[in-house]
Amino acid sequence: MKIEIITIGDEILIGQIVDTNSAWMAQELNRIGGDIIRITTVGDVVSDVRSAIDAAMSRSDIVLMTGGLGPTKDDMTKNILCDYFDSRLIFDKDVKQNIDDLFAKRGIAMNILTENQALVPDKSRVIMNRVGTAPCLWFEKEGKILVAMPGVPLEMKWLMSQEIIPRLENLFRENGTILHHTCQVCDYSESALAEKLSAFETAMPASFKLAYLPKAGVIRLRLTGKGLEATLLEQQMKALIQELHHILGGAIFSDEDLPLAQIVGKRLSADNLSFSTAESCTGGAIASMITEIPGSSAYFNGGVVSYSNSVKSSVLGVSTQDLTDFGAVSEPVVRQMAIGVSRVCGSDCSVATSGIAGPDGGTADKPVGTVWIAAKYKEQVVTRLYHFGKSREFNIQRASNAGGILPHYL
Amino acid sequence: MKIEIITIGDEILIGQIVDTNSAWMAQELNRIGGDIIRITTVGDVVSDVRSAIDAAMSRSDIVLMTGGLGPTKDDMTKNILCDYFDSRLIFDKDVKQNIDDLFAKRGIAMNILTENQALVPDKSRVIMNRVGTAPCLWFEKEGKILVAMPGVPLEMKWLMSQEIIPRLENLFRENGTILHHTCQVCDYSESALAEKLSAFETAMPASFKLAYLPKAGVIRLRLTGKGLEATLLEQQMKALIQELHHILGGAIFSDEDLPLAQIVGKRLSADNLSFSTAESCTGGAIASMITEIPGSSAYFNGGVVSYSNSVKSSVLGVSTQDLTDFGAVSEPVVRQMAIGVSRVCGSDCSVATSGIAGPDGGTADKPVGTVWIAAKYKEQVVTRLYHFGKSREFNIQRASNAGGILPHYL
Repeated sequence: MKIEIITIGDEILIGQIVDTNSAWMAQELNRIGGDIIRITTVGDVVSDVRSAIDAAMSRSDIVLMTGGLGPTKDDMTKNILCDYFDSRLIFDKDVKQNIDDLFAKRGIAMNILTENQALVPDKSRVIMNRVGTAPCLWFEKEGKILVAMPGVPLEMKWLMSQEIIPRLENLFRENGTILHHTCQVCDYSESALAEKLSAFETAMPASFKLAYLPKAGVIRLRLTGKGLEATLLEQQMKALIQELHHILGGAIFSDEDLPLAQIVGKRLSADNLSFSTAESCTGGAIASMITEIPGSSAYFNGGVVSYSNSVKSSVLGVSTQDLTDFGAVSEPVVRQMAIGVSRVCGSDCSVATSGIAGPDGGTADKPVGTVWIAAKYKEQVVTRLYHFGKSREFNIQRASNAGGILPHYL
Repeated sequence: MKIEIITIGDEILIGQIVDTNSAWMAQELNRIGGDIIRITTVGDVVSDVRSAIDAAMSRSDIVLMTGGLGPTKDDMTKNILCDYFDSRLIFDKDVKQNIDDLFAKRGIAMNILTENQALVPDKSRVIMNRVGTAPCLWFEKEGKILVAMPGVPLEMKWLMSQEIIPRLENLFRENGTILHHTCQVCDYSESALAEKLSAFETAMPASFKLAYLPKAGVIRLRLTGKGLEATLLEQQMKALIQELHHILGGAIFSDEDLPLAQIVGKRLSADNLSFSTAESCTGGAIASMITEIPGSSAYFNGGVVSYSNSVKSSVLGVSTQDLTDFGAVSEPVVRQMAIGVSRVCGSDCSVATSGIAGPDGGTADKPVGTVWIAAKYKEQVVTRLYHFGKSREFNIQRASNAGGILPHYL
């Protein structure tokens, strides 16, 4: 089934916001076996929205639209949809009730603009939006589907997860079962991994696909199987996962499709251990990544961003002699940072980074991108030297991820 | 002049990457007065790319394409372009020389795939790509322009900044001069700011536009003037900026269109002062934001992420009595954190945050979104209470920005 996404919003066309909605939707649709062939962004202009709908409905089986349904703009989009589907606006008392309930919860009065949101095209099926006032509209015409959703990410995600994806999943299921498994791999470049797995890929059953999703030193390796016989598919999936582990060994640091910080958090929680961070070149990015996860205060005690050498020695207790002899970017220093922050923050485990993020500060000996990382897990400490690239942003990302992965070796 | 952007790439359609290229291009084009009417993403499929080009060239004056020019894929895109522009591929020795130079610099040998990149359509003007092997191709047909660029962000940005934007700017200049000025505003919601400025907007000369670009508690207010008389325009701009300052006073924390962390850094550098951070609810996000800026080590000594109360007292010296009496999210605690981290990191200035990021941990007294922030500038300390929202991600962002802005009051 061919799917298109249409995003309506002037704010995207002037570059005010990045269209992250489409990427999220594409990922979710892909997961359930949808085939996205085009993403189009147009402004709040009747003729542009209409021409985008015409073209998308002629090419694809399913069209998902976001945006243009806010209280000040909804007449436009709803009128365009009425026109396209030969429909007219009628009052929907359930939508009105949903809006009343939301407003009562928030303790504010409803205005006339919001009242308009209870008007819906008579040929659409209304899908209730429990987290916002604009209803989601589901249209069908000549075997094709168009769904119009609000563009507010929270509302779009709620509607997609709770309502749209399950319906589409049922629709797709008529074409068979879909199974996914994601392994997260480190220590490989994308091309080196593809080479390592080339025989594996060639031997895979035809009903399976392997996708490489690389980001800043981590490759998410997603196996997807499609077929009519669920039991067979599951057996094949199990065997393929086993074989991947056999080929890649310790390079697979997780079999769950979760953010790295959540994987670290789950292991610490399971082992009932606490954690802290000592960061130089990553400048707080690891602590920030760890604390993005709700509930991280249960295992994260805190951290020290020891940017200057004096903070490294005075707060973390790194030997000033070693700082002089080996430099801040060195094995002895990063090891002492990890041990020091564990002591200072009273934690069982820790990670420490020290490197040259760039763009300046590199030497012939230690060029930009040189990063030492240490991980302490209870009494064990492991240290490792990395050579990343020239971009400061990328080096910080790579080093942060490497810092999250390193405890995996202990 | 109507502009469209076409992005070619399967990786966007499967949600593997977010299309940040388009947002960046849209912002740059908007700045020089371009009017982007549509952004289209298609996969590496000949018929889809061709139909996207046909439609865009029929609607718009300028079409900018990115992607599909890599060594393994360039035949496809180049052939489509040859077909559309009735052109044929010829060998370009300057492109070949550019590729040779790049490979020599990187110390690697050229393979046959890369050699193909020296083939270019004879009806295109070649714009040399000094940071990558795929050349940029500029076509003109019936008064319309199509530019094909590689999709690698670094290469696209280099080509846009160095080559394409200056050319388009010249083209647009025939329609008059464009002036911009950006004020960065805090302490207002977008709607409150629009209300405050409604008389100002009504009275603005017709040749001026005001754009609101809000993000996590900061509104970038961009004044744009277009006209034929440059001197008049400059005078009008000056008067408008003065009036904005008159109306908004201290709520304008910068007249430069720079990231917040860079504004903080510039002030510290100018005053020759050092800085440190003590973070609870922001969990390292402020330190991370500060250290994203190249050269920040000149003024940033370091920071402490005091997530647990015990780190607050043992490392930063916050009174355990105050932690018990007032709680971690309180004025006395956040003040002591700011003073403490300045002492511990030996810095002249500091910022401290303590709040409830959510989703859990709120009470009737201090609901999720309650954040205390302190800023210390030399001997002065200011503290302030904020009430943000329910989303953890948003609360961390808002609190980080507020932490960056608060020193502005000292």
